[in-house]
Amino acid sequence: MPHIELETGAPGIRGLFQYRPETGKHLQGLVEVLLRGPSTLSRGERELIAAYVSTLNDCRFCASSHSAFAAAQLPEGMPLVDQVHDDAERAPISSKLKALLRIAAAVRRGGTEVTGEHVAAARAEGATDVEIHDTVLIAAAFCMFNRYVDGLATVAPDDPAAYTQMAKVIVEQGYVR
Amino acid sequence: MPHIELETGAPGIRGLFQYRPETGKHLQGLVEVLLRGPSTLSRGERELIAAYVSTLNDCRFCASSHSAFAAAQLPEGMPLVDQVHDDAERAPISSKLKALLRIAAAVRRGGTEVTGEHVAAARAEGATDVEIHDTVLIAAAFCMFNRYVDGLATVAPDDPAAYTQMAKVIVEQGYVR
Repeated sequence: MPHIELETGAPGIRGLFQYRPETGKHLQGLVEVLLRGPSTLSRGERELIAAYVSTLNDCRFCASSHSAFAAAQLPEGMPLVDQVHDDAERAPISSKLKALLRIAAAVRRGGTEVTGEHVAAARAEGATDVEIHDTVLIAAAFCMFNRYVDGLATVAPDDPAAYTQMAKVIVEQGYVR
Repeated sequence: MPHIELETGAPGIRGLFQYRPETGKHLQGLVEVLLRGPSTLSRGERELIAAYVSTLNDCRFCASSHSAFAAAQLPEGMPLVDQVHDDAERAPISSKLKALLRIAAAVRRGGTEVTGEHVAAARAEGATDVEIHDTVLIAAAFCMFNRYVDGLATVAPDDPAAYTQMAKVIVEQGYVR
C-alpha cells in the first residue's frame, strides 16, 4: 500500500504523475527527451540502460516496465534484455553499449565512481560526448525515479502482461500524452 | 576537468544545462516547482532538504550551492545550515522538519529504506501527504543531480563567495530564467 493516498490507484510512477501534475509534467518531459528524443542511441538501447539501472536498484516497477519498453524496441526482444540483466559483459550487445552500461553502473553507485578510464573506454568504442552525457543522465535520472517510486511504496503489477500493455502505449504514444 | 567538453566553462550543473538545453529545460522546471513553487514548506526548508541530501552524497557543488541557497532563505542563516549538516537530530529545527530529513536520508540510501514508521512519525509531527511526497521527490531528485554533476566530473568553485553570489541570483530570479 502506498505511503500516501493516491486517489487514482494507477501503479508505479503513473499514480505519482497524476497525484502531483506540477512535478509530473517536468518528469515526463525529461524522460521523453532522454529516452525517445533525437539521439544516436536507439530508443531500445536507451530503455535498456534505464532497465539495467532500475534492476540494479531493485525497483520492481521501473525494472519491469523499462525492460518491457526495451524489449518492445529491440529486434532481439526480451531474451536479450534478460541476458543483459543476467550478465551484461557476456550479452550479445555492442562493445560501445557495454562500455556505456559500465558507466551507468558506476553512476548508480555514486557520481564520483565514474572514472576517466570508464569514459576513455567508451570513447575508444566510438561513444560520442553526447552519448556519454546522456548515459550519465539516464542512469542518474533512474536513481531518482527508482527512489521516488519505492520511497512512496507505490504498487507494481504482478502480471507481466500489464507491462507488455504499458509498452504498447509508450512505443506508440510516448511519455507525454 | 570535466569528462566531456563543456564549452561555456560554467561550473557544476550550470555547464550541463547549457551543454544540453533539451534536458536542462525540464530539469530547471522540476527544481523550480520543487524548491520554489507554492508549498507549505518554506523555500529555505526545501533548500535545506536538498543541501542535506547533497552533503550526505558528498557532492561538493550541490552541497555548497544549496547550503548557500538555504542559508539565504532561512532567518537563522548559515549557522543553522551548518548545525543541520553536523547533527540534524540536535539542530534547532522543528520536529516536523527533523522527521522529513529522516525520510530524505532514507530515500538517499534507497527507496525501500523508507518505512511506514518514518511516514507515521512525520504525520505525527503534522506533516501532510504533499509535504511527505515533496520531501521524497526532493531527496530522490538530488540523488539524480548529485550523480549528474559528479558523474561528468564538473568543476566546483573553491571560493565560498561564488556560492553566495549564486544564492543572490537564485533568490531573486529563481531557477528558470
